[in-house]
Amino acid sequence: MKLTVVGVENIRCPIKIRERGGGRQSTVADLSLRARMPSETRETCLTTVRAIINKYQDDINPNIFPCIVDELRTELQADAAQIEMTFPYFIEKQAPITKTSSLMEYTCRFTCQVSDKQDFTISVWVPCTTLCPCSKEISRFGAHNQRAEINLNVKFTKFIWLEDLIELVESGSSSEVYSLLKRPDEKYVTEKAYENPMFVEDVVRKVAELAMRHDDISWFSVGAESFESIHKHSAYAFTDLEAISG
Amino acid sequence: MKLTVVGVENIRCPIKIRERGGGRQSTVADLSLRARMPSETRETCLTTVRAIINKYQDDINPNIFPCIVDELRTELQADAAQIEMTFPYFIEKQAPITKTSSLMEYTCRFTCQVSDKQDFTISVWVPCTTLCPCSKEISRFGAHNQRAEINLNVKFTKFIWLEDLIELVESGSSSEVYSLLKRPDEKYVTEKAYENPMFVEDVVRKVAELAMRHDDISWFSVGAESFESIHKHSAYAFTDLEAISG
Amino acid sequence: MKLTVVGVENIRCPIKIRERGGGRQSTVADLSLRARMPSETRETCLTTVRAIINKYQDDINPNIFPCIVDELRTELQADAAQIEMTFPYFIEKQAPITKTSSLMEYTCRFTCQVSDKQDFTISVWVPCTTLCPCSKEISRFGAHNQRAEINLNVKFTKFIWLEDLIELVESGSSSEVYSLLKRPDEKYVTEKAYENPMFVEDVVRKVAELAMRHDDISWFSVGAESFESIHKHSAYAFTDLEAISG
Amino acid sequence: MKLTVVGVENIRCPIKIRERGGGRQSTVADLSLRARMPSETRETCLTTVRAIINKYQDDINPNIFPCIVDELRTELQADAAQIEMTFPYFIEKQAPITKTSSLMEYTCRFTCQVSDKQDFTISVWVPCTTLCPCSKEISRFGAHNQRAEINLNVKFTKFIWLEDLIELVESGSSSEVYSLLKRPDEKYVTEKAYENPMFVEDVVRKVAELAMRHDDISWFSVGAESFESIHKHSAYAFTDLEAISG
Repeated sequence: MKLTVVGVENIRCPIKIRERGGGRQSTVADLSLRARMPSETRETCLTTVRAIINKYQDDINPNIFPCIVDELRTELQADAAQIEMTFPYFIEKQAPITKTSSLMEYTCRFTCQVSDKQDFTISVWVPCTTLCPCSKEISRFGAHNQRAEINLNVKFTKFIWLEDLIELVESGSSSEVYSLLKRPDEKYVTEKAYENPMFVEDVVRKVAELAMRHDDISWFSVGAESFESIHKHSAYAFTDLEAISG
Repeated sequence: MKLTVVGVENIRCPIKIRERGGGRQSTVADLSLRARMPSETRETCLTTVRAIINKYQDDINPNIFPCIVDELRTELQADAAQIEMTFPYFIEKQAPITKTSSLMEYTCRFTCQVSDKQDFTISVWVPCTTLCPCSKEISRFGAHNQRAEINLNVKFTKFIWLEDLIELVESGSSSEVYSLLKRPDEKYVTEKAYENPMFVEDVVRKVAELAMRHDDISWFSVGAESFESIHKHSAYAFTDLEAISG
Repeated sequence: MKLTVVGVENIRCPIKIRERGGGRQSTVADLSLRARMPSETRETCLTTVRAIINKYQDDINPNIFPCIVDELRTELQADAAQIEMTFPYFIEKQAPITKTSSLMEYTCRFTCQVSDKQDFTISVWVPCTTLCPCSKEISRFGAHNQRAEINLNVKFTKFIWLEDLIELVESGSSSEVYSLLKRPDEKYVTEKAYENPMFVEDVVRKVAELAMRHDDISWFSVGAESFESIHKHSAYAFTDLEAISG
Repeated sequence: MKLTVVGVENIRCPIKIRERGGGRQSTVADLSLRARMPSETRETCLTTVRAIINKYQDDINPNIFPCIVDELRTELQADAAQIEMTFPYFIEKQAPITKTSSLMEYTCRFTCQVSDKQDFTISVWVPCTTLCPCSKEISRFGAHNQRAEINLNVKFTKFIWLEDLIELVESGSSSEVYSLLKRPDEKYVTEKAYENPMFVEDVVRKVAELAMRHDDISWFSVGAESFESIHKHSAYAFTDLEAISG
């Protein structure tokens, strides 16, 4: 046990993320980093990561992120290095009928590990509505529904925009969720969810199918949590037993 | 500024709470305490509170709680002392149709401050369902609904059981929430919520009315948070501008 | 009970904060808003606040914030309105000896309530070190020390920069905390803390004295929490019994 | 993708854990369960787990826990089932010099997965003190120290008491942490930590060595987080790159 993995967590820093529409979005990232390395070089770990982040923080994107981690590994002379960068990402979204525009926020994460090989995962957490098929079927009117959150993690063979991943996920539930809805919009999403009942495991299967069909996705996992409106607990579903949603 | 208020937080200890049905329930409490006192006696603060809690922990109830705080104040020779004790409380609850029994958990809190006078508040947090009246009215079918949480804080003139407060709150929403429901029960709660649409502010008004009519309640505040199923944000309502839900 | 207070929480949006050094800092705010108003106008609450935030988000500062809340109240025809805006704020800070520069992050909050009068509070949370005077006195060598967090809330008669408030607080503990320290800096802060032992209540008194002497501060409260290194619990101190640190 | 993993989280229930000293300790557990199974049987998932927990809740121990999960899997006709049970566990602990006795609380977790084979892990989280060797070496007096938390996860070949695991971990840091210390005890732990400086990676190595030497432990992982007193961030160390502390 000569080598140990050392890490630093809870580093926050302002960054700019490249947007699909052109331009860059200012946000604030939570960083954690880990490195497996000879113990004598540990002291420079934090200094190094701060210098590297400073250098790249004004143009973070999926192309540059692995380079950042590789540079960290090289400078630390580490066996392996990993950076996890979590940030809120904002997308201008239109209400379905009135087309009222407002900002919707999504949690996103880049996780990249570099050793002799490189392993990069993008994660998004997307809020949605689930409406219970069983409740709809057995009740004379109404059906219990609730907010749910879908987590998609992907590895990819070609550059993917966060916007693309989020849109893929949003098409997989009873209804999308919005930050601003006027009355005609509220009528639309209420009826859409009622006509589109899905258990949380249906959501997971649907999003998994969409991910499977995507040419540029080489690996994925999906999880979904439903904040049950008739219970105090949450219902979950996952693509596999090890998948972790949060 | 000779006097400062000192405090200790994050003390957890096993306690037993007296139940309405007789008997005592084992649970685990989070304790925080505060005292305004001459700085020279601070050292004994934690020793004293631990000794007092040890003495009373096997039979905590609303009658004994102010005595615990008064004993703390006396032993510390403090000007004023306060203990806040938060704990999960379990009630055996029957599903509405099949009468299937299961444990439902509620967060409860005793907060008592003793100086030359005594001020004791009991708080309960109760999950419930809200179904949106607007969504129901404008939609051809369905209505968005979601889990909500109601917080009731009361001062009282006569002993009140936690069970009584929780039942009062549960009768104030579109539907109660359960920990176990079979299909006939799920049908019942789905239809009940649909026939009983309430905004989160309706819930606050209803619970406030029930509290106002209760003979033994001398003061109260109510807050409710609705985890909107069609939005990412929460909708709140309160009885007054200063009320805090959490 | 004709009027209820309604609110919305968990709205996140990108904002720019004016900096003391000139320029504006991009960050991400958590917004919550409350309004006391006739129930019939509630529907427009969220639309209104989003429109107003959009209008002002590129230049938030203590001068403009009350105007935002007042505009919200007027547009909602509300009796009273309140906005609470919490955000991470970054300041370039130099290590004490090597003058190595790095970004330090502080949590800040603007809370403003407007009714027939206006009530505006700025809050900052500042990490620091406390070194226990008792432990130092009784031990042959060493003294237990730990990270603590100081919360200062102020009302003011004249414009105050966040940078000014944070510097005021940082001068009140055993030692400041940094995001990047080289060896000579680490030596300096270790020795400084050892030569400057303070209980968490000493920190509260010191910061309170500094706030009292500040000409532009008309009201304040101070709280501090120390994450005790020899205990599992936290030690707190406050200027008064009602003060809440979090 | 015929099978999905379904789960339920946030179920709390009162349980009794068997203690090393004889007797059983009342506490409150957070339960989550997952099962991979044909979708048609999902409905009974929660009913089944509640019935099984009810049956065993008065005598939970490492011997019985895998049987609970196996019974769940059998009743659900699931391919694989997993229960994770997290709970606060209390141990009477004596201060090092005055032998003052008080309850210390530790977070513990049982995680068991049963498919055609069985995989059971016990986890404990133990607070401790770390004192920085570098700070001690370079400073004329004092040394920065802080609370840290050590997480040990083990698989085992023979029954192990939680008390045994916790004692193993507590012997691996600069100093143990206590819930109640009088002045002679505070002097003792201050001096002990100063004479026993350890980086967070030294703690991980030490606990790993102790676990490796234990005859009944067949697998383990260790992580430690140090709440740095001179920084805002946490320093971590792990036995391997995948280990997760929380």
